[in-house]
Amino acid sequence: MSKIGIILGSDSDYPYIEKSVDFLKKNSIGFEIEVSSAHRTPQRTIDIIRRFENSGIEVIIAAAGGAAHLPGVVAAHTLLPVLGIPIKTALSGLDSLYSIVQMPGGIPVATFGIGNSGGFNSVLFALEILALKDNKIKEFLVKFRKDQQKEVIEKSERLKKLVSQ
Amino acid sequence: MSKIGIILGSDSDYPYIEKSVDFLKKNSIGFEIEVSSAHRTPQRTIDIIRRFENSGIEVIIAAAGGAAHLPGVVAAHTLLPVLGIPIKTALSGLDSLYSIVQMPGGIPVATFGIGNSGGFNSVLFALEILALKDNKIKEFLVKFRKDQQKEVIEKSERLKKLVSQ
Amino acid sequence: MSKIGIILGSDSDYPYIEKSVDFLKKNSIGFEIEVSSAHRTPQRTIDIIRRFENSGIEVIIAAAGGAAHLPGVVAAHTLLPVLGIPIKTALSGLDSLYSIVQMPGGIPVATFGIGNSGGFNSVLFALEILALKDNKIKEFLVKFRKDQQKEVIEKSERLKKLVSQ
Amino acid sequence: MSKIGIILGSDSDYPYIEKSVDFLKKNSIGFEIEVSSAHRTPQRTIDIIRRFENSGIEVIIAAAGGAAHLPGVVAAHTLLPVLGIPIKTALSGLDSLYSIVQMPGGIPVATFGIGNSGGFNSVLFALEILALKDNKIKEFLVKFRKDQQKEVIEKSERLKKLVSQ
Amino acid sequence: MSKIGIILGSDSDYPYIEKSVDFLKKNSIGFEIEVSSAHRTPQRTIDIIRRFENSGIEVIIAAAGGAAHLPGVVAAHTLLPVLGIPIKTALSGLDSLYSIVQMPGGIPVATFGIGNSGGFNSVLFALEILALKDNKIKEFLVKFRKDQQKEVIEKSERLKKLVSQ
Amino acid sequence: MSKIGIILGSDSDYPYIEKSVDFLKKNSIGFEIEVSSAHRTPQRTIDIIRRFENSGIEVIIAAAGGAAHLPGVVAAHTLLPVLGIPIKTALSGLDSLYSIVQMPGGIPVATFGIGNSGGFNSVLFALEILALKDNKIKEFLVKFRKDQQKEVIEKSERLKKLVSQ
Amino acid sequence: MSKIGIILGSDSDYPYIEKSVDFLKKNSIGFEIEVSSAHRTPQRTIDIIRRFENSGIEVIIAAAGGAAHLPGVVAAHTLLPVLGIPIKTALSGLDSLYSIVQMPGGIPVATFGIGNSGGFNSVLFALEILALKDNKIKEFLVKFRKDQQKEVIEKSERLKKLVSQ
Amino acid sequence: MSKIGIILGSDSDYPYIEKSVDFLKKNSIGFEIEVSSAHRTPQRTIDIIRRFENSGIEVIIAAAGGAAHLPGVVAAHTLLPVLGIPIKTALSGLDSLYSIVQMPGGIPVATFGIGNSGGFNSVLFALEILALKDNKIKEFLVKFRKDQQKEVIEKSERLKKLVSQ
Repeated sequence: MSKIGIILGSDSDYPYIEKSVDFLKKNSIGFEIEVSSAHRTPQRTIDIIRRFENSGIEVIIAAAGGAAHLPGVVAAHTLLPVLGIPIKTALSGLDSLYSIVQMPGGIPVATFGIGNSGGFNSVLFALEILALKDNKIKEFLVKFRKDQQKEVIEKSERLKKLVSQ
Repeated sequence: MSKIGIILGSDSDYPYIEKSVDFLKKNSIGFEIEVSSAHRTPQRTIDIIRRFENSGIEVIIAAAGGAAHLPGVVAAHTLLPVLGIPIKTALSGLDSLYSIVQMPGGIPVATFGIGNSGGFNSVLFALEILALKDNKIKEFLVKFRKDQQKEVIEKSERLKKLVSQ
Repeated sequence: MSKIGIILGSDSDYPYIEKSVDFLKKNSIGFEIEVSSAHRTPQRTIDIIRRFENSGIEVIIAAAGGAAHLPGVVAAHTLLPVLGIPIKTALSGLDSLYSIVQMPGGIPVATFGIGNSGGFNSVLFALEILALKDNKIKEFLVKFRKDQQKEVIEKSERLKKLVSQ
Repeated sequence: MSKIGIILGSDSDYPYIEKSVDFLKKNSIGFEIEVSSAHRTPQRTIDIIRRFENSGIEVIIAAAGGAAHLPGVVAAHTLLPVLGIPIKTALSGLDSLYSIVQMPGGIPVATFGIGNSGGFNSVLFALEILALKDNKIKEFLVKFRKDQQKEVIEKSERLKKLVSQ
Repeated sequence: MSKIGIILGSDSDYPYIEKSVDFLKKNSIGFEIEVSSAHRTPQRTIDIIRRFENSGIEVIIAAAGGAAHLPGVVAAHTLLPVLGIPIKTALSGLDSLYSIVQMPGGIPVATFGIGNSGGFNSVLFALEILALKDNKIKEFLVKFRKDQQKEVIEKSERLKKLVSQ
Repeated sequence: MSKIGIILGSDSDYPYIEKSVDFLKKNSIGFEIEVSSAHRTPQRTIDIIRRFENSGIEVIIAAAGGAAHLPGVVAAHTLLPVLGIPIKTALSGLDSLYSIVQMPGGIPVATFGIGNSGGFNSVLFALEILALKDNKIKEFLVKFRKDQQKEVIEKSERLKKLVSQ
Repeated sequence: MSKIGIILGSDSDYPYIEKSVDFLKKNSIGFEIEVSSAHRTPQRTIDIIRRFENSGIEVIIAAAGGAAHLPGVVAAHTLLPVLGIPIKTALSGLDSLYSIVQMPGGIPVATFGIGNSGGFNSVLFALEILALKDNKIKEFLVKFRKDQQKEVIEKSERLKKLVSQ
Repeated sequence: MSKIGIILGSDSDYPYIEKSVDFLKKNSIGFEIEVSSAHRTPQRTIDIIRRFENSGIEVIIAAAGGAAHLPGVVAAHTLLPVLGIPIKTALSGLDSLYSIVQMPGGIPVATFGIGNSGGFNSVLFALEILALKDNKIKEFLVKFRKDQQKEVIEKSERLKKLVSQ
C-alpha cells in the first residue's frame, strides 16, 4: 500500500522529482503520482487529495514553480503533512520558495530546498515520518545514512589521489 | 449596484486598502468587501466569488501578504478580471509580490504595487475597466486626473516658497 | 475592429510576446502592434496612444525591459486600462518588474509575470476585460479554460504511464 | 509523555516561538525545550538530541537566525523529523531562511516561514505528524481548523460593519 | 544665473535633497527647483525642461522613488546631462535604483546612491561638470575636499580620545 | 586632443566597453584607454589619473566588476567627473552596481547600467558633458538621437510586416 | 605592544565596533584605532597602514558601509592580514557586504558578518591569528570558549524555568 | 610540513579550489586536502580537524555550497583560523555566502568571495597569516604582488595595441 502521494503543478516539474521517483522505485517504496494545477484544475486537485486520504496515503509531496500555490492549496484541504518543493524558475526559484515557505499561521507547509536536492530531501523526510510507525523504513534510513557516509569517504580518497598526482 | 468586489486575505490587510475604501465611499462608487482566506476558508472564498458574479460584480480586487495565494485562487474560479494587491510583510512584501505576479500562463492576475499605492491604483484601474461601458465613470476619471495635476502644481509652488526662504 | 493594442519598447522584446500574438491570430482576435520607445521616441509613443484611442482600442498591452518605463508612460497618457509585461533581463527581469509594478498612486498599470507567461496572461486578461461587454469572447474564455483542464489531465496520464514503466 | 522537542539556538530566539509554547501549554500538549548552539555548544546539542530520542520525542523543532546551522546540525545527528524555523534578522531573516532550507541532498530539514507564523506552523505540522498515530491529536486539529474558519468569518463581519459606517 | 535645475517627482522627496539645497544656498550657488511628476504631469515636465534649457541651466538633477521614471523621462527630452537620485522606499529604494540606473542604451542617466548621500553627491557632481568651464567652482571644490579631509582627521582625534578613556 | 579617458579594472572588462570604443573610433572622437586595478596597481592608477588631467582629459570613465572599487578610487583622486560602469558578474553585476553607486557623501561617482548598455550610455553622457562647451559634439548628439528615432520606426515597420504574415 | 590595528571608514561606524573595543580594553589586549576614509583621505589611509606596519601591528581590522572600499584599499597596500566588517546601511548592509567580500583574485580581504556580531568575530579572529605565536592568547581563547558554553547552559536553564511557570 | 588544511563539503566543490591547489603545488607550499560533509559525516569532520591540529596545520580552509554549514561547524571545533569559501549554486552562491558569513558572535569564520576568486584569495590570505612567522613566505608574497602588477601593465599594453588597430 502506498503511503506517499506526489502532486506536480505541471508535468514540466517532473525533472526535479525524477531522481526521487527512481529512488522510490529502486527501493520498492510505494507512492502515487499526479499532475494537477492549483489554478487550472482546482477541483481536480481537491479530488486527488480526497482519494489520497481514502487510499491510505500518509504524506503528500507537492512541487510547483513561480507563484507556487499548489503546496499551500493542498495543505488547505488536508490534515496530512504536506511537503512543498519549490521548482527552479527564471527568478532562480526564489518566487517559488517564497510562495511556498511564507504560509500564513494556521495552515503549515514543510518546505524543502529549491530543485533536485529539495525534491530528494522531501522524499527522505517523508520516510522519516513513516519510520515513526514502521521499523523497516527506519532500518532502511539507517542503512541509507551509512552508505552515504561511505560514499563521502570514497570521494575523499579519490580526490586525494587526483590532487597528489 | 456594486460593480467592484474586494476580498482581503486577513483583516490585518485592511489598513493597506483603507484609503481606497474611503475614496470609493466619498465618491459614492458602490463596492462589496469581505475577509476570506485562500487557506483557512477555501470553500467560503469560492462561495463569495459566486455571489459576487451573481450580484453583478465586474471586477474583483484581492489583497494578501506572504504566500499571498488569494488573488491567484480567486482567478482560478472566475473569468472576471482579478486585481491583486501585495501586502507589505517582514520581507518588504517581496514574498507577496512574487506570489501574486508570477502566476503560471493560463490564469491571469493583474498585479499592482506593494502596499497603499498599489491598493489605490487597483481601485483606479477597476474604474478604468468600468469606464469602458460607463461614461460617468470615465468623466469621473478625467476629472480625477485633472485634479491630480493641479495638486502637483500646488505642491511645487509650496516647495519653491519654502526653498526661497 | 481591433480592441487590443500592443506596444513593445524594443523589437528585441518580441520573442516574449510572440506566443501571445500567435494565439490572437489563430483565434482571429484583432489587435494592433507597434514598436515605440518611451525614451527614444517619446512623442511617437503618445501619437500611437492617441491613434489607438481613436480607432477603438480598449486595452493597451505594453512590454519593456530594464528601466521599463513604457507601460507607466503609456498609462500617463490614457485612461484605457494599461497592462505591463516585464521583459527578462540580465537582472532576471527584476529591474523590469519593479519599474513597472511600483507605480506611484494615481496612474495605475496592471502588471503581469516576467517573460512569456506574463505576456500570455496579459492577453488573456485583456480578453477578460473585453468579455464584460462581449459574450462571444466570454464563451471563448470558458472554452479555453475547459481545454486547459483537459490538457492537465492528459499530461497527468502521460506522466503516470512514464513513471510506471 | 512529551513527543515534541524544541531547541533554540539562542534564548533571544524565544519571542518567535513564545506564542507556540503558549499554544502547547494551553492545550496540554507535552513538549521539552532547550537552548543550545550548534557552534558554541556542539557536543551539548548532540547530547540533547540523544536524550530527546531516548525519552520518546518524535519530532524536533529547531529555531535559529543568521548562519542558522542548528536545524541542519540537528538533522545530521538524528532520523527523527526535524522542523526548522528561520528567525528574523537584520537581513529580514533571508540569511536564516537560506541557511536552513538549502540543505544538501541526504539530510532533510523541513523549513517553515520566517518568524512567528513559521514558528506556529512548525508546531501545527508537528501535530499533523503525531496525528498519524494519535486520533486525539487528529480530532484536536480538526477542531482547530474549524475554529480558525469561524474566526475568519467573525473578522469579516466586523470589517464589513466598520466599512459600512 | 542658475546653472543647476532640480526636479522632484513628488514633494515628499524633498527631505532627501534638503541637505543639498541648503549646501547650495549657503555657498550661493544658483539653482532652480520644481516638483513635477513624469506620470501625473507629463506635459508640465517637458515644459520645465524647455524652460530650464532656455534659461541657461546646464545640468538637471531629477529625484524619484518607486517606479522612478522621472530621470529617464527628463533625459528623453534633453541633451543636457541628467543626474538621477533614487529615493528610499519600502523596498529600500532598490525599485527606484533599478528604475533609474538600468536605462536602455541611447538615453543616458547618471545615477547616484539611494537617499541623502546620493542627493548630496549629485550636487557635487553637477559642480564638477560646471567646474570644467568655471575656475571659481573648481576652486570651491578644491577647498571643499580639503575641508572634508580636515573633518575626517578631527573625527579620528575625537574617537581616539573617547576610546582611550 | 582626447577629452575622454577610459580605465578598465581588468582587460576582461573590455567586451563590455568594446561597442562604445568602436562607436568613438567610427565617429573620430578622441579618447585614451588603460587597464589599471584599484587593488593590484593602486599607485599606477593614480599616475594615470594625473597623466589624464595633464593631457586635457575632461571626463573619466571607469569600469569594474565584483568589489568594483576602481570608479570610487579614481573619484577620490580627481575633481574631473567620473563615470562608473558596473561589469556583469556571477551575482548578475549587483555586487559591482552596489560597490559603485553607493558612494559615501563627498566623493561622487556617476553610475550607469550593468554591462553593455551602461557602457554605451557612459560614453553618450561624457559627450553630453563635452557638448556644454563644444557645439560640434552637440550637433553630433542631436543627429545621433534623430538617427536613433528613425531606427525605432524602421524596426516597428519590420515587426508589423512580420506579424501580419 | 599593540598587535591589532583598527580603521573605521567613518566615526559613525564606531557603534558597530564599540562592543569589541570594550572587550579588548577589558581584557587588556593592546590595539590602535583610527578613522580614515578610503575616498576622502586616501593618502592618510596609506600613511596609517605604514605606521601600523612599522609599530608591530600584525592584523588590521577595517570597517566600512555602503560602497565599502576601505578594507580592499587597505589590503591593496599591505601584506598583513586584513579583516573587513560590513557596516549596516539602508540596504541592510548588503551593499557593504558585497563591496568587501567580492574582492578580485590577488588581494584578499577576510570578511565577517554585517554589524555587531561581525565586528566582534573579527576581533576574535584576530586573536586566533595572534594565538598561533602567543600561548597566552591561545589560553585566553580557550577560556573564552568555555565561558561562552557556560553562558549558553545558564540561558537554557533560565528559559526552561520561564517556560515551566 | 603542511601548514594549510583544506576541507571540501563535497567533491563537486573541487573545481572552485582547483586553481588554488595548482598554485600551492607549483610553488611547493605544503597542504592537506579532504572531502568531508558537515551533515553526512559530522564525526569524521571533527576527526579531520583533530588530525589537522595534531599534525601542525595552522590555517583551515573550508569550502561549501547551499546551506554551507561546513566552515562554521569546523570553526566550532577549533581555535585555528578558519577561512570559508562560498561555492556557487543555483542561487548564485548567495545562500552559501549568507550561511558562511553571518556567523553568530563568538565563533568566527573569515569569509571570502563566491567561487574561484574567493578560493584563490583564501589561499593567499592563509599565506599572509603564515608570513607573520615565516619570512620566506613573506618574500614569496612580495614577489607575487610585484608579478601581479607586471601582469596588469602587460595586459594594458596589449589592450591599447588592440584598440589602436
